[in-house]
Amino acid sequence: MSPYVLRITCEDSVGLIHKITGVIYALGLNITSNHEYVDPETRCFFMRSVFSGEFDRDRLVAEIAALLPEAASVKLAEVRKKRVVVMVTREHHCVGDLLLKNEFGNLNATIDAVISNYSDLRGLVERFAVPFHFVSHEGVGREKHEEKILEIMDGYSPEYIVLAKYMRILSAPFVERYAERIINIHHSFLPAFIGANPYEQAYRRGVKIIGATAHFVNSNLDEGPIISQNVINVTHTYSPSDIKRAGMEIEKTTLARALNLVFNDRVVMCGNRTIVFE
Amino acid sequence: MSPYVLRITCEDSVGLIHKITGVIYALGLNITSNHEYVDPETRCFFMRSVFSGEFDRDRLVAEIAALLPEAASVKLAEVRKKRVVVMVTREHHCVGDLLLKNEFGNLNATIDAVISNYSDLRGLVERFAVPFHFVSHEGVGREKHEEKILEIMDGYSPEYIVLAKYMRILSAPFVERYAERIINIHHSFLPAFIGANPYEQAYRRGVKIIGATAHFVNSNLDEGPIISQNVINVTHTYSPSDIKRAGMEIEKTTLARALNLVFNDRVVMCGNRTIVFE
Amino acid sequence: MSPYVLRITCEDSVGLIHKITGVIYALGLNITSNHEYVDPETRCFFMRSVFSGEFDRDRLVAEIAALLPEAASVKLAEVRKKRVVVMVTREHHCVGDLLLKNEFGNLNATIDAVISNYSDLRGLVERFAVPFHFVSHEGVGREKHEEKILEIMDGYSPEYIVLAKYMRILSAPFVERYAERIINIHHSFLPAFIGANPYEQAYRRGVKIIGATAHFVNSNLDEGPIISQNVINVTHTYSPSDIKRAGMEIEKTTLARALNLVFNDRVVMCGNRTIVFE
Amino acid sequence: MSPYVLRITCEDSVGLIHKITGVIYALGLNITSNHEYVDPETRCFFMRSVFSGEFDRDRLVAEIAALLPEAASVKLAEVRKKRVVVMVTREHHCVGDLLLKNEFGNLNATIDAVISNYSDLRGLVERFAVPFHFVSHEGVGREKHEEKILEIMDGYSPEYIVLAKYMRILSAPFVERYAERIINIHHSFLPAFIGANPYEQAYRRGVKIIGATAHFVNSNLDEGPIISQNVINVTHTYSPSDIKRAGMEIEKTTLARALNLVFNDRVVMCGNRTIVFE
Repeated sequence: MSPYVLRITCEDSVGLIHKITGVIYALGLNITSNHEYVDPETRCFFMRSVFSGEFDRDRLVAEIAALLPEAASVKLAEVRKKRVVVMVTREHHCVGDLLLKNEFGNLNATIDAVISNYSDLRGLVERFAVPFHFVSHEGVGREKHEEKILEIMDGYSPEYIVLAKYMRILSAPFVERYAERIINIHHSFLPAFIGANPYEQAYRRGVKIIGATAHFVNSNLDEGPIISQNVINVTHTYSPSDIKRAGMEIEKTTLARALNLVFNDRVVMCGNRTIVFE
Repeated sequence: MSPYVLRITCEDSVGLIHKITGVIYALGLNITSNHEYVDPETRCFFMRSVFSGEFDRDRLVAEIAALLPEAASVKLAEVRKKRVVVMVTREHHCVGDLLLKNEFGNLNATIDAVISNYSDLRGLVERFAVPFHFVSHEGVGREKHEEKILEIMDGYSPEYIVLAKYMRILSAPFVERYAERIINIHHSFLPAFIGANPYEQAYRRGVKIIGATAHFVNSNLDEGPIISQNVINVTHTYSPSDIKRAGMEIEKTTLARALNLVFNDRVVMCGNRTIVFE
Repeated sequence: MSPYVLRITCEDSVGLIHKITGVIYALGLNITSNHEYVDPETRCFFMRSVFSGEFDRDRLVAEIAALLPEAASVKLAEVRKKRVVVMVTREHHCVGDLLLKNEFGNLNATIDAVISNYSDLRGLVERFAVPFHFVSHEGVGREKHEEKILEIMDGYSPEYIVLAKYMRILSAPFVERYAERIINIHHSFLPAFIGANPYEQAYRRGVKIIGATAHFVNSNLDEGPIISQNVINVTHTYSPSDIKRAGMEIEKTTLARALNLVFNDRVVMCGNRTIVFE
Repeated sequence: MSPYVLRITCEDSVGLIHKITGVIYALGLNITSNHEYVDPETRCFFMRSVFSGEFDRDRLVAEIAALLPEAASVKLAEVRKKRVVVMVTREHHCVGDLLLKNEFGNLNATIDAVISNYSDLRGLVERFAVPFHFVSHEGVGREKHEEKILEIMDGYSPEYIVLAKYMRILSAPFVERYAERIINIHHSFLPAFIGANPYEQAYRRGVKIIGATAHFVNSNLDEGPIISQNVINVTHTYSPSDIKRAGMEIEKTTLARALNLVFNDRVVMCGNRTIVFE
C-alpha cells in the first residue's frame, strides 16, 4: 500500500483545506504530510497532501474537483518511480550520474531510454542496458528532426523528459506537447551568463563562484521556472577548462537534486516561479 | 489586523487537519499557510497554520483543544515581535549583531534587557539604550547567582531567553522555569568538539570546516534540540585564533537564523529533535 | 617586530623568485609565507611574500625594483591595521557590522570616519565614537558634491575607502584619485541583476539562491574586479522584502570577508580579475 | 613537455626559497606557480613549485636535497595521471563516480583495478573495462585476507589506493606499506559520529547538516590527516535512509574533490594535519 501525493492549484478562497481534507477524511485516509501555501501576490492556492490507503482514485479526484473553481488543477500521483526519457548531446557527466542512480535504485525514476543528436554516448548508455536512440540533426531541419525524436519519444510515453545537457533548443510545439514535464540543467547561475561559452564568460569576468540552474522548460529559452540552483567556489587559478570541470560537478548535483524534488511530486508551478514543498 | 500562527502537537489520528481547519473555517478565517507533518517513528502530529482575521482567541483554542487528545499542545501566537532577554558573558559578536538588528527592526523581537556575569559589555549594550544588568558570579554559589538573575529576569517576563555566548551552565531548575524558551549558540558543529577550547581542538584535528549550532537548552548540557547549524571553510593557514575569528562569524549568523525561525513560530520540538516549518 | 607583506606584479621571466628572494635573504630576513602565480594568459607574474625582521624598507624596495622590468609594481606593507573611511547612504547593516568589528579589534583596520549623503546613520556611527560627516547631494551637482566629499576624505588620507551601501555612482576622477583602493559591496551575485531593485528582480525570476559581490571600484559601474562572492538560499515563501533581508545578511558577510582579504594584503589585480593569495 | 611539481618538507631556516629556486633557475626552468608555507608551531617548511622544461630529474632532486637538512623530503612528480587501485565493499556510489570520471578523463588518474571483499560490484566495474578482483574475507583471518589483497595490489604497484567505501579496517602493516598513499572517504563530518550507523546517530541527534570527510589513512582508525570536508543540509523530514542517501551524494563529491587535490600533488602532511596548496 504505497502512499499517494495529491497536488492542487486553484484560486484561493476561505475553507479550502477544510473542504479538501474532508473528502480525504470521509474515505478514512490518514494524511501524514500536508503543505499549503497561498501566494500573496496572485492569491493562488497550492496544496500538497500525502496519504495512504485503499480508495477509488477517480472518485477522490472528482469529489475534490467538484469543490473547487473550474480552472483548478488536481493531480493525484502514486508514490512510485516515474518513467523518464533522457535527452543528451555529447557530454557524459549528467547522464552518467543518472544512469548510475537508475541502476542502483537511487533516482526515484526509471530511465526508459536516452535520445541523442550525436552517437558519442551510445557505449556508455547501452552498457547500463538502457536503449539509446541516435537521431542526427545534420542535414534535416529542426521541424523534421523533432518529428523523428517525437516518434521515438511518444513510443515511451514518458512522464518526464530530462535534458541532461541536450544542447539544442526545443521548438514551442515540442515544449507544448510535454508541457510542465521537461526539466533542463543550465550551465550557469541563471540569470547570469546566458548564452554561449558561459565558462569563458565567467573566467573573463573573474567570478569567485560559479553555479548551475535546473529549471522547467517553457517556450522562452533559459526562462522557465527555476527548480533548484547551486554554486561552487572557484579561484583565480582556475582556467576556463578548470571552471568547466567544476561546472560539470555542480551541474550534476543540481540536476540530481531538482529531479529528486520533481519525482517526489514536491514541485508545482506558479507562473514563472516554482513552489517547492520540501 | 496582524496574522496569527497556530501550532499544534498531539498524537496522530485520522481526520485531524480536517477537524482543526473546520474550527478555523467556521470563524470565517482564511489560512494562508498550513504545514502538517506526522513523525513516522513516534506517530506524533505537528501542524502550523497562519491565518488572519478577528475572532475570540480563547474560544478558538478551546474549541480546537476539545477535538484533540488530552495531552495535546495548542499554541496560538499573534505575529508580532517577541519580548526577549539576552544573556552574555564577555564576547560581543553575537549580542552586538542582535543589538543592531533590534535597533533597526530586523530581529522580529525586542530586546528588553541584557544580563551578564561580567561588566565588560555594559558600554556596548547601553549605547543601544538597552538596560544592562551585571550579576557577578564571583563569591556566590551557583544557586544564589541564578536566584539573583531570576529576580531580574522574571521582572521582564521574557517570552524567550537568548544565550548569546553565556559561558556558564544553567541549573535544571532555571532551565525548567523557562522550558522550551531558552536558545543557545554553541561554539561548534555539534556533536563534534563538545567541551572546552573547541577551536584549539579543531586546529589540532586539522579540520577543513568549522561550524556552529543553535539549539534549545534542556537539562543536558549541549544536548538540547538543534534548531540550526552552519559551517565555514578553514585552511591550514588558520591559527587557532583565526579559527576562533571565523567561528565568531558563523556563530553570529547561525544564531540569527535560528532566532528568525523561532521568533516566527516556525519551530516545534519532537523529543530531542526539532520540526522546522520553513 | 611586526611582519611585512611584499606584493609584486610584473611581466614574467625566468628566475624572478630566486632573484627577489635573494634580496630578502641577503638582509637575513626569513620568509614565512610565499605565494607566486603566473597568469598563463597574460604572462603576468604575481608574488606575495611575508617576512619579519629589521631592515631598511626603501632600500629593499629599491633593490628589488632594480631587478624587475620598469613597469613592475612593488608594494611593501607593514602588517598593521589599515586606515579606512567608510561611505554610506541610509542602510545600516554593513556599516553596523564594520563599526562593531572596528571597536572590538576584529577588522584589521581602523575606521577613521564615515561620510554619508544622508544623515540617517549619524546616531549609530557617533555612538561608536567615530566621526560622521553628512554631505548632502541635494541641490548640488555631482561634481560639486564629490568636491565636498573629497575635501573631507583627503583630510583623512585613507588607505582604503569602503562603500558600505553608498548608493551613488562615483565619477571617474574620484575613482582615479583612489584607484585600486575603493571597495564596494554589490547587492547581487554579479553579473546577475545589475541595476535597480535587484531583490524585486530576483523575486520575479523565482531564483532559489541570492548572492552578493564585493569588488574593487573602477570607472565602469558594477564592472570592477571581483574580490569575493557568496550566496544564500531562498524559497518560494520569501517575499521581496524577505529576499532583501536575506540579502542584507549575505552582503554583510561578503563585504567583511573581502575586507579581511584586502586589509591583509592578500589581493592583487590582474586586469579585470583579482588574484587572491589565501 | 608536461610540467613538474616539486614538493619539499623540511625544517625551516633562512634563505630556503632563494636556495631552492636557485637550483631551478640554474637549469633555465621557469616557475609558473610557487607556494611556500612555514607552520608557525612546528617551524616546518613546506614548498610546492610548478615548472616546465627539460632537465635531469635525478640531478635536480640531488642538488636540492644537498641544500637541505638531512631529514628533508623532496618529491618531484611529473604532471600526469596517477596510477590508482580502488578498494570497495558493496556500496556503488563513490566507485561509480570514479569509474565515470576515469573513462571520460576527468580524474587525473587511471584506475588500474578495483579490489573488493564482496562480489556485488563486479558487474559495474567490469562494464567499464576495469579489472575486478574479489577477495572474500569470509573464513580467513585478517592477516591472511590482507596478504591475498596485497599480492594483487603489489602487482599493480599503484601510486595511490583509494578506499571508496571499503568497510574493513586495514592493519598497521598494510597501512605502513602504502604510507601516505591511502585515501579514505569517511561517512561523517569527522570528528562527529565516529563508529557504526552514523546516519542513524545523526537522525537521533536531530542534526540539520550532515557531512563527509576525505582523509589519509594512518594506523589510527578515522584519525588520519583530513584532506577535504563538506556538508549538506538535512531537515526533520529526512528519515535515516534519506539521510543516508544525502550522505552518499556528499561522500561522492567530497572524495572526488580530495582526489583532485592529491592527484595534482597539492597536499602535503604536517603531523596529523594537511597543508593543501590550492
